[in-house]
Amino acid sequence: MEITMYDTLLQLPLFQGLCKNDFTNIIGKVKLHFRKYNADDIIVEQGAPCTQLIFLLNGEIISQTTDNQHSYALFETFGSPFVIEPYSLFGMQTNYTATYKARTDINIVTIDKLFVLNELNNYEIFRLNYLNILSNRAQVAYEKLWNSHIGNTEEKILNFLVLRSMKPEGKKILKIKMEDLASLIDETRINVSKVLNDLQEQGLVQLSRKEISIPALEKLTEKNK
Amino acid sequence: MEITMYDTLLQLPLFQGLCKNDFTNIIGKVKLHFRKYNADDIIVEQGAPCTQLIFLLNGEIISQTTDNQHSYALFETFGSPFVIEPYSLFGMQTNYTATYKARTDINIVTIDKLFVLNELNNYEIFRLNYLNILSNRAQVAYEKLWNSHIGNTEEKILNFLVLRSMKPEGKKILKIKMEDLASLIDETRINVSKVLNDLQEQGLVQLSRKEISIPALEKLTEKNK
Repeated sequence: MEITMYDTLLQLPLFQGLCKNDFTNIIGKVKLHFRKYNADDIIVEQGAPCTQLIFLLNGEIISQTTDNQHSYALFETFGSPFVIEPYSLFGMQTNYTATYKARTDINIVTIDKLFVLNELNNYEIFRLNYLNILSNRAQVAYEKLWNSHIGNTEEKILNFLVLRSMKPEGKKILKIKMEDLASLIDETRINVSKVLNDLQEQGLVQLSRKEISIPALEKLTEKNK
Repeated sequence: MEITMYDTLLQLPLFQGLCKNDFTNIIGKVKLHFRKYNADDIIVEQGAPCTQLIFLLNGEIISQTTDNQHSYALFETFGSPFVIEPYSLFGMQTNYTATYKARTDINIVTIDKLFVLNELNNYEIFRLNYLNILSNRAQVAYEKLWNSHIGNTEEKILNFLVLRSMKPEGKKILKIKMEDLASLIDETRINVSKVLNDLQEQGLVQLSRKEISIPALEKLTEKNK
């Protein structure tokens, strides 16, 4: 095992606090599956059952969440180290909420749910890390739910994005028809178009056919505080 | 220990699947604190640190979540068996998100975080139950975030309630000035008043001064599907 992979895994919130000895011990018992993907390869698909933890060791991945009912999709980018949906391994909805694709060439390692339960879960620090990660996700969502608000057209568009984004910052791409977005936020197409074009002039979004690209969501959020 | 308390605790999602033997074993090791409250007594206050699990053994409690910034409050009712905010014991936000009051005379039992970590967490079933409960909460919130929508005035009011309610069904009371609600959902006071009065005529809400009472949120949700 390469030393870099080892160190990368230890940087993950799930493993933080584990001493190298414990980690060596874990690695000895838990079956790790290594895999390489080339840029644009699909790692998992939205809706597929989540039966393992997938760790991104290096490179970048893109999540794509599609709302089939309303025919739009939101894309986000994640760098390493990263774990794909630790909150989809348990609970009532154990299917991936998004499709994950390699944006660059990447290396991943996966650990089956069985090993998570039977081995990793025996380490107090791992257990506590997992409880903290799940609680955090629930807490962040709760904050968003209470702070969601309806305002002018710009605030409505921002709120639409913030509610649906996993990360509050970074690049997002929303593939949607302007009239569909307008309908989803109960606005006229004209108003939505006007606001988006204003934002484009300020360099906060880039518009192309059926696509709104937001280079940094946090800049839009900051502006609307 | 009364047999009824024992059975009540075993009905909780946190303890489900534990055999009576294991549970007797746990009870022998974990310090349980019993307490009675009279109707209207406060059990915990919103913002107080969550350092224990509080189990409602019998009776009913009311949660009150106050949005100090916008000066409104939402009330919900919970029956036994119930655990107060297991998702606030871990993570970054370990403060209660609501105030909990006894609605009737009640009995509770509390277990300190230390015992949860050192004793309960040694039982695989308890661990798995806890992971499932936290994952579920995160998953339910995620569903709400993606399905939040802005529509006509009635849909906006309903969405406002659904996003903020812990339980999707049952009685809710929203203490708010009509003009504050109108402003929060970007509507006119006249529109909000008209819709609420229509809903009152249909028996779906009851209006009084600065208060909207919803006897059963699920009836409003069902109507708007």
